[in-house]
Amino acid sequence: MELESNSKDAPIGVFDSGVGGLTVVREIMRQIPNEKIIYFGDTARLPYGSKSKDTIIRYSRQICHFLESQKVKAIVVACNTASAQALDTLEQEIDVPITGVVKPGAKTAAEATKNGKIGVIATEGTISSQIYSQYIMKLKPDTEVIGKACPLFVPLVEEGLLIDPVTVEIAQRYLTELIDIDIDTLILGCTHYPLIRSTIGKIMGDKVTLVNPAYETARELKELLEEKHLLNETKPTLGTGQYQFYVSDAADKFKTFANSILKYGILSAKVVNMEQY
Amino acid sequence: MELESNSKDAPIGVFDSGVGGLTVVREIMRQIPNEKIIYFGDTARLPYGSKSKDTIIRYSRQICHFLESQKVKAIVVACNTASAQALDTLEQEIDVPITGVVKPGAKTAAEATKNGKIGVIATEGTISSQIYSQYIMKLKPDTEVIGKACPLFVPLVEEGLLIDPVTVEIAQRYLTELIDIDIDTLILGCTHYPLIRSTIGKIMGDKVTLVNPAYETARELKELLEEKHLLNETKPTLGTGQYQFYVSDAADKFKTFANSILKYGILSAKVVNMEQY
Repeated sequence: MELESNSKDAPIGVFDSGVGGLTVVREIMRQIPNEKIIYFGDTARLPYGSKSKDTIIRYSRQICHFLESQKVKAIVVACNTASAQALDTLEQEIDVPITGVVKPGAKTAAEATKNGKIGVIATEGTISSQIYSQYIMKLKPDTEVIGKACPLFVPLVEEGLLIDPVTVEIAQRYLTELIDIDIDTLILGCTHYPLIRSTIGKIMGDKVTLVNPAYETARELKELLEEKHLLNETKPTLGTGQYQFYVSDAADKFKTFANSILKYGILSAKVVNMEQY
Repeated sequence: MELESNSKDAPIGVFDSGVGGLTVVREIMRQIPNEKIIYFGDTARLPYGSKSKDTIIRYSRQICHFLESQKVKAIVVACNTASAQALDTLEQEIDVPITGVVKPGAKTAAEATKNGKIGVIATEGTISSQIYSQYIMKLKPDTEVIGKACPLFVPLVEEGLLIDPVTVEIAQRYLTELIDIDIDTLILGCTHYPLIRSTIGKIMGDKVTLVNPAYETARELKELLEEKHLLNETKPTLGTGQYQFYVSDAADKFKTFANSILKYGILSAKVVNMEQY
């Protein structure tokens, strides 16, 4: 029997430019453990952070078409750059409920700040879109939002230098100006950054609240599914492939990285060519 | 009048995954200044270094089709990863003469070594292909070739940290094992690396010869054009657009970077969508 995409039983589609979105998957697994997940990482075309809006929209659209072909009941854009650049367009084009990581992160930060100074660290694409600033200003107009692009964080994380003097040195350079202007809240605006959260936290100090949008995104997804009566009430039976992983390239490398992030062991990732969608 | 691709007047097509191939363009401009050049940088899909062979072939094929549509008389694969993974396939499919950066670099290194120990630094894709080793072994079978992938060099160069303590620290980590086994020749097997040549040179010391394949590639291209009677004998008249630059994304960023590498100022880079080719 083919699953209908409005069925409670249908999976949730989650996508990212690569492995970073797995930090969001980890939160979804924790908060709504009955859900099936189909994850897609666009490893053939990563990174998205330095690419233009038009290109991000084209790539994201292809991925959503692929996920729709897999009969998902909802889509999570687990990539800050794609959420920033493509979510508005996708919301108009895609038939299933779709949500991103930016809005939940912005909301949490707006609630957390006391002195009204929020920092955002992210890729060049996310920072130049000013999307976090726009959302926060709607919620709390007297806030000052300071963005800082950190292009070396993703390659450092992918090289495995999570706890390393080089990562500390680069983080200090990127974060100094945010410390100088006395922010009290910092959004980790790229799904890779929670993996170097301890380094960032030590540099920023105890008085700065770090916001990880992955947590709030999973919470918002749960609410969205509840509202649409799409929450899966029973745990899928073993052996039905509750979690499935697809990439556009280099499945083995993805698998190794995924197994270092998720507690759950990934057995395989299948390769699909996005240009067909 | 449309140019025929076997005309002396026709341009040379040069491509890379991004900006690195401009170090090859710089050498072609120096050594055969009468030639027209059409450069393509695949900035929407970079980096190639961590992608699989199949993907590199598919991307390179699309770019060659684009360059052929521009009536080029020859193609230079100015990317080590694409030369390593796709050149054999492209040679069989493409109608114009085509050459890469690996063979010329391998030849120079084989001639340069005295103790028979050659190091190669490059992306993961180039190292795992073992292509430098294969070429060198054909020329000088008793040579020992030691490859070392340096995945952080490209992002460090793209972040502009050409002379920087962080780049020195990372380079020391990557290069230590090559120093320990006493190589006397080191191939800069990625077109970005000549831009941090001075850092690499200081760490390796005076006794190690650094080989920059860009120089030899331009020399081999000149010989190839002479042999086929395709060398342009007169300098193109001003205003005919001797050098033209195309990218698949983010033309402005490309322009800024290109102008820091080339003495010649680039006025514009046009964006083309590779999925059409």
